[in-house]
Amino acid sequence: MNIPMQIEPRVLKGFRDFLPEAEMRRRDLSRILEDCFSSFGFVPIDTPVLEYTEVLLGKGGGETDKQVYRFTDHGERDVAMRFDLTVPFARYMALHRPDLYLPFKRYHIGKVFRGENTQRGRYREFTQCDFDIVGTTAPSADLEIVLMIAAAFKALNIPGITIHVSHRAVFNRFLAHHNAAGAAVEVLRTVDKLRKVGAQTTRQTLADLTSPDVAEKTLRFINATGTPAEIISVMEELAGGPDEDTQRLHAVTAAVDQLGLSDVVRLDPSITRGLDYYTGIVFETFLNGAEKIGSVCSGGRYDDLVGLYSKEAMPGVGASIGLDRLIAGLDELALPMDGTRAADALVTMQDETLTAHYHHIASTLRERGIRCEVFPEAQKLGRQFAFAEKKGIPYAIIIGRREYEAGTMNLRVLADRRNVDDLDIDRLVATLNV
Amino acid sequence: MNIPMQIEPRVLKGFRDFLPEAEMRRRDLSRILEDCFSSFGFVPIDTPVLEYTEVLLGKGGGETDKQVYRFTDHGERDVAMRFDLTVPFARYMALHRPDLYLPFKRYHIGKVFRGENTQRGRYREFTQCDFDIVGTTAPSADLEIVLMIAAAFKALNIPGITIHVSHRAVFNRFLAHHNAAGAAVEVLRTVDKLRKVGAQTTRQTLADLTSPDVAEKTLRFINATGTPAEIISVMEELAGGPDEDTQRLHAVTAAVDQLGLSDVVRLDPSITRGLDYYTGIVFETFLNGAEKIGSVCSGGRYDDLVGLYSKEAMPGVGASIGLDRLIAGLDELALPMDGTRAADALVTMQDETLTAHYHHIASTLRERGIRCEVFPEAQKLGRQFAFAEKKGIPYAIIIGRREYEAGTMNLRVLADRRNVDDLDIDRLVATLNV
Repeated sequence: MNIPMQIEPRVLKGFRDFLPEAEMRRRDLSRILEDCFSSFGFVPIDTPVLEYTEVLLGKGGGETDKQVYRFTDHGERDVAMRFDLTVPFARYMALHRPDLYLPFKRYHIGKVFRGENTQRGRYREFTQCDFDIVGTTAPSADLEIVLMIAAAFKALNIPGITIHVSHRAVFNRFLAHHNAAGAAVEVLRTVDKLRKVGAQTTRQTLADLTSPDVAEKTLRFINATGTPAEIISVMEELAGGPDEDTQRLHAVTAAVDQLGLSDVVRLDPSITRGLDYYTGIVFETFLNGAEKIGSVCSGGRYDDLVGLYSKEAMPGVGASIGLDRLIAGLDELALPMDGTRAADALVTMQDETLTAHYHHIASTLRERGIRCEVFPEAQKLGRQFAFAEKKGIPYAIIIGRREYEAGTMNLRVLADRRNVDDLDIDRLVATLNV
Repeated sequence: MNIPMQIEPRVLKGFRDFLPEAEMRRRDLSRILEDCFSSFGFVPIDTPVLEYTEVLLGKGGGETDKQVYRFTDHGERDVAMRFDLTVPFARYMALHRPDLYLPFKRYHIGKVFRGENTQRGRYREFTQCDFDIVGTTAPSADLEIVLMIAAAFKALNIPGITIHVSHRAVFNRFLAHHNAAGAAVEVLRTVDKLRKVGAQTTRQTLADLTSPDVAEKTLRFINATGTPAEIISVMEELAGGPDEDTQRLHAVTAAVDQLGLSDVVRLDPSITRGLDYYTGIVFETFLNGAEKIGSVCSGGRYDDLVGLYSKEAMPGVGASIGLDRLIAGLDELALPMDGTRAADALVTMQDETLTAHYHHIASTLRERGIRCEVFPEAQKLGRQFAFAEKKGIPYAIIIGRREYEAGTMNLRVLADRRNVDDLDIDRLVATLNV
């Protein structure tokens, strides 16, 4: 016989275990988001973690590809772990179109995987919450996504957010109007970095990419201030006049105002989103006071989700909340925690022969809505109290042989080190619910 | 420019997409289980999908190993996707022991991955719900797991289940008492297949493994019937007398009886669980009327969870619900669905210039607890009704220019094709809540 060697219980870099307190919080946040999405008629879907590499990456080979966890499976298939929830959603819509109704509003909360450089504080496994409305080009859908972002953060009890809104197509038209459409991708990327690098460097980079005049106008475009109407008129002036897109921006900002959300939503032409993918309205959401952690919810309108898999075009609009970044933001704001606790009461064990009775009391309390657990061993009471305190349980219930026979119990309020003796179950429940 | 080729939107064999209705049901079931576990003071944890292969598989190479999704990552690390939640939990306890209190009660709901043969109706990605109490050998913990299984299935509104309970160590002692300990693993496997292959074949196989006499006694042992006390006395007689383990079986079955669960829990010595791992009480749970789909919740007591990673022994007891098999069982029983619907009401669109008003009404209804969505386009009313029906939404709200100006709305009860006109918001809410 060989003695098995001990193995170091380590976790891969960029991957994380979640301790109970952190995981309770993640579950609470997920539930709040699910309930919010569901109150807007969005339905949940799920897709596999593993897919054909071809399905996830297409035939191409971009920057993302290098980060994808990709391998050959037992059946010699080239497979990969999903790196976002958008590509699987596109594949899903192409595959299940006959079973679905349009417009289709879905949300999807799930883990995604990217072999990114962890030195930038990035994780290799993280959770995304995506929501999209596909199958319609209606302005109402654009508005609804903005309203749902606002509602989601309100439901999360976050005191202040700002949803920055702009329109990609208006920006593109502006560039085309100044014969700079060829540099669009580079210009977008430069503008996207404005906050990081500052106006001076941005102006220089833009001038190099286009011309000093276009650079100047680009800065005017993205820095336009005033009321939404004033900003839109600057955008229109620089882009060659009003059109359907600027009309839509007018409509969305007016509706936002009418719905009492003008404090939350800000028209900000500097928001362009790096991705090629977007063709209409775009948004980024910042937590007031924690702007430096970046956008916690971004998205926009696109012309076609499923082009890679289907001939039928599928326009849509949506956004994604990065759960991990959101939690980082909440930590940054040091918001008071909701105080999720592991249980409401601990039934202590005094006498092992009363085990069934302890479980009976616990079960009765659960039926009355009190989450409680039974300590499994008749250890010293002080140790059982210490256990409860460590786990964040505020009350301990003590039943010895005498109380068992009298049909009563004693309650220990752990925070006050105070006892309330000889309660029956009704009085106990009343005391716990105070 | 090359025209991108279309890619077939397919899913890997053994992997599944979940359509909204199926996913809503999965989320409902998960939430019910989470709330039940939480009411017993169990706390959630999470671990990565990807781990070092060495951590998941140890140094060995068993049957499981061949099914594991394993590859080399970008950093030349040998990594694998988790194939259960037990091994990651063991690694977790070894790593985080200083941050946790004992006894530690955790649940973990997550996806696991096995490259199994899909011809047997197995999935390669499936969801497990594990719950364990570690750090105590107390009988109370054994009892609590049984009680929580019963409570979980009750919370799921499943009319009848039977939790079959036995004790692995008593069975082992029985074999040792008849000098058949050497064949233990094979005997356990044979007994585990009793239901599939029948008594005749089992007897023959057991006789070949041991002797006709031991085979006979094994069948007597596993087929013992009567009250729990009677069954235990047969087990004791065959295993060489009473001991601590049979005492514990007495205590657990007596407590189950005292707690009114004797209809749900059955002492069944034929339950042994295939795995080497178990050392005490073992359980398997069957849905009454859908026994043939197999156990939907199995587990037992073990001496040491973390032996591979730590010198400190960590005894525990726990069980696991296979969510996919449970759903298969519910389908088999053809239980009436809870009727999760995507939303309660559809605010139809009559006039695009009223878009903000429609969203205002929807938002007001949500604040009153009504889940509702706004149809984004002013399509024909009949098409909007058809959309609502397809999505399972029972009510449609109709607001034209006239109603907008009057501050009222009309309600369409889709099932009855009946209209209720000129409601204000209070009367609408009252009507929806009837």
